[in-house]
Amino acid sequence: MLSEFSLIDRFFARRARATPRAPLGIGDDCALLTPRAGEMLAISTDMLVEGRHFLPDVDPYALGHKALAVNLSDLAAMGAKPLAFTLALALPQAQEDWLSAFSEGMFEIAERFDCELVGGDTTSGPLNICISVFGEVLPQHALRRDAAQPGDDIWISGTLGDARAGLGVLRGEWTAGDEEAAALRKALERPEPRVALGIALRGHARAALDISDGLAGDLLHILERSQMSAHVDVDAVPRSAALRRLAADVQRRCTLAGGDDYELCFTAPISARSAIEAAGKSVAVPVTRIGTISALQAGVPAIVWHDAAGTPLNLTLQGFDHFHAD
Amino acid sequence: MLSEFSLIDRFFARRARATPRAPLGIGDDCALLTPRAGEMLAISTDMLVEGRHFLPDVDPYALGHKALAVNLSDLAAMGAKPLAFTLALALPQAQEDWLSAFSEGMFEIAERFDCELVGGDTTSGPLNICISVFGEVLPQHALRRDAAQPGDDIWISGTLGDARAGLGVLRGEWTAGDEEAAALRKALERPEPRVALGIALRGHARAALDISDGLAGDLLHILERSQMSAHVDVDAVPRSAALRRLAADVQRRCTLAGGDDYELCFTAPISARSAIEAAGKSVAVPVTRIGTISALQAGVPAIVWHDAAGTPLNLTLQGFDHFHAD
Repeated sequence: MLSEFSLIDRFFARRARATPRAPLGIGDDCALLTPRAGEMLAISTDMLVEGRHFLPDVDPYALGHKALAVNLSDLAAMGAKPLAFTLALALPQAQEDWLSAFSEGMFEIAERFDCELVGGDTTSGPLNICISVFGEVLPQHALRRDAAQPGDDIWISGTLGDARAGLGVLRGEWTAGDEEAAALRKALERPEPRVALGIALRGHARAALDISDGLAGDLLHILERSQMSAHVDVDAVPRSAALRRLAADVQRRCTLAGGDDYELCFTAPISARSAIEAAGKSVAVPVTRIGTISALQAGVPAIVWHDAAGTPLNLTLQGFDHFHAD
Repeated sequence: MLSEFSLIDRFFARRARATPRAPLGIGDDCALLTPRAGEMLAISTDMLVEGRHFLPDVDPYALGHKALAVNLSDLAAMGAKPLAFTLALALPQAQEDWLSAFSEGMFEIAERFDCELVGGDTTSGPLNICISVFGEVLPQHALRRDAAQPGDDIWISGTLGDARAGLGVLRGEWTAGDEEAAALRKALERPEPRVALGIALRGHARAALDISDGLAGDLLHILERSQMSAHVDVDAVPRSAALRRLAADVQRRCTLAGGDDYELCFTAPISARSAIEAAGKSVAVPVTRIGTISALQAGVPAIVWHDAAGTPLNLTLQGFDHFHAD
């Protein structure tokens, strides 16, 4: 196994060592990180398993990208600046082509977000990718889930539903034109973490999270942690041109219950509207208001859905599985 | 799956939330940690896979213990004080009995070492346990692998070889009496990380690591990183009473090439001998001198083995697989 696993040193450790910033990285018992004085370290861990989080035939470059992207998205949702990550990788066998493409995809996004590989572990076993990512944020800037207040606007970055729509195309649940199918598939396989937006929202937004499991479920996490309710205009939820070509029913289910979007959902006081718009412009990410936070009704956090005319909708979103289904 | 995986919330998240110290732990996009001013954060990640790091029929309580213990051992080898950990867990199915025992074993050692569960991830998939552990250490106290100096003593904590001997008993490679077999098996399944010793060695030891892959291979890591050589008296390597009951050849191979011991191997100047002895006594862990660091011979880091009489030995340790074989 040693000769096989020296491949991993070749694809990961050497490249990581080329530009070290951490005081101590790969090759010792621990990596050492020094957050700047006063900054807190934000930590997130995600494990990706074949069949559950990606298809067996996924392009390894895209997989390397996505494995780190979904972790960086957690930092974005906290308003934290990426610093470093560790990679633990179980592989059935060490295939040079696969490792080369996977590591290229991972380092492309790592270097673009200035996030250094500082350690990890490799082993043989069923394919499993576990990444822990580290960022820094000042305590007063952290975008926590429990900070929503009555009257806050609810905002969404980018557009929702494309990743789930792309999965549906791959699965044959619906069809799309070549151009639309490519755009939807790219949303599924190459999500772009909203790191710059998360940082730009510091001091303006209150609560935030990233949408990995679908708007309906994820917004409920903010409501539960903040003990609030919400009114959401389903017609205001931003959709891409590609998604708008699909049936209205598919659009609605993908935007509200689709997973894997990795856009930010955040709340902010009405007084911050122009600052939020400016933050979005400063990082070239559209931001859209979709609803309002309100005090608890009947003691239970809940989302009241309505259409553009204000007519309440009784949506059934259960049973619409998305890819990231845990 | 949600109802199954709510079991995980029950066994892990609730208990972790009972005594939170981190500013923000389980339930948000990231955990937030605040290392004390001036301290560096030490980070280590280990992934454990069935069949490679533990037997399929392992006691889940022991597995929960060992999964965290091997990570705490990396902190010990850096001289770092444990702070927190994240757990990512893939399970074929969520069995209540298994999760109860696994989490009990994990929390027993976590609480004993004051190491808080701050986040993680759970998914269905082939059994895989990935833990990242976080500790703190002052820069001048970090026990790095690259700090050995010519003339340093080479020290070992506790005894070596029991874990590999215990694996051999399980595999039927050799036999032992009931009492000895139980002691050896305990060494394999319930390693005790030398956290207190690592902290007591701050300011006295120079280089250090924990022995997970066997003395021969692991000491070589110190030599490679420090660009040094070593002379080691194989008869001085400390062995337990249980191991001493096995054949001399088995003893030697288990102590020198056995894995999974999680004892510390460290170097220190001769002037520190009494301080090292006192550090071991202060935490009730025996420490034993086994050799000396020397300047590079012929430019290649190497270990010269000799017996108690000083006679050089030509040992062949390749091909003696241990459990932790990556």
